[in-house]
Amino acid sequence: MTKVTCDMSVSIDGFTAGPNQSADKPFGDGPVDRLHQGEAITAGSAFIMGRNMFGPGRGEWDESWKGWWGDDPPYHAPVFVLTHHPREPVQMQGGTTFTFVTDGIEPALAQARAAAGGGDVAIAGGASTVNQYLAAGAIDELRLHVAPIVLGVGERLFDGVGPLALERVGVKATDLVTHLTYRVAR
Amino acid sequence: MTKVTCDMSVSIDGFTAGPNQSADKPFGDGPVDRLHQGEAITAGSAFIMGRNMFGPGRGEWDESWKGWWGDDPPYHAPVFVLTHHPREPVQMQGGTTFTFVTDGIEPALAQARAAAGGGDVAIAGGASTVNQYLAAGAIDELRLHVAPIVLGVGERLFDGVGPLALERVGVKATDLVTHLTYRVAR
Repeated sequence: MTKVTCDMSVSIDGFTAGPNQSADKPFGDGPVDRLHQGEAITAGSAFIMGRNMFGPGRGEWDESWKGWWGDDPPYHAPVFVLTHHPREPVQMQGGTTFTFVTDGIEPALAQARAAAGGGDVAIAGGASTVNQYLAAGAIDELRLHVAPIVLGVGERLFDGVGPLALERVGVKATDLVTHLTYRVAR
Repeated sequence: MTKVTCDMSVSIDGFTAGPNQSADKPFGDGPVDRLHQGEAITAGSAFIMGRNMFGPGRGEWDESWKGWWGDDPPYHAPVFVLTHHPREPVQMQGGTTFTFVTDGIEPALAQARAAAGGGDVAIAGGASTVNQYLAAGAIDELRLHVAPIVLGVGERLFDGVGPLALERVGVKATDLVTHLTYRVAR
């Protein structure tokens, strides 16, 4: 059965990115490299991401922008991008397709579920998108990858979400990062 | 050698207490009981706490207030309470003495170090006090006890502190709580 999962790299104080995202700085200002010292997290049969995770642009599309990841993005699966601005799907190498969804998080999830064909749907980020799905009670399993750093400013996981009860179902410590898996109670 | 430690029970989103503290609700509103499902954390040869951790009063002292903990508080050691309002020390049963420090966090730490006699000084809370000591670079070891709950509002650890680099030196999972120990880099 399809599970809705979410893997997020966070600082100890809950930030997933610094402020002031730009084309050169997908994760914004600050020591954000330390957030992403592990492997890229791309386990899912379909993905959903917010527009700001897809690119630094706002407003109407610059059609030449096809994500941060080059010709062969690491998703190798359908990716649904939440946006207010319509755009035709973009087919990349390696099985990644970016489909732009303008009618909200629930239709996006329905499309992703259908595309996942029984596999898991992964909410890829950023924090604002994850927070919307958490607030909607749509995430089954939240996997936090906690880097040993305090950022102090930026995009914050859980903002506007709580209160929420969780069940911790896994803990794993690697060299730098602490991996905490939570099941979200319904 | 004296280490400055800090044990804090926090929600996944970094809150140590809810809003609206009162005499009936030391930890404020919300499902804060779930923050404190483990044992009380009272390992230290001397303690420092903020006035709001000592009591719900603000402004001039109500001298009849002697803390939340009854006649025999769980500290069994000297406790230094940060306040803007002078008050004579209060001797409790079981070795706990509350000494009121009006000249700031550094003099309080100096007094606590002297009183600890080579043992550890524990910063007992709340969040605002811990954040001041973190910002001052005065805490050697931070032990977070992460409860599986999102609170959403309240007193937040790390507010105004970052950026800060840490080293994780311990991880322990108990039934409900995840215990993360960090050494604070200088």
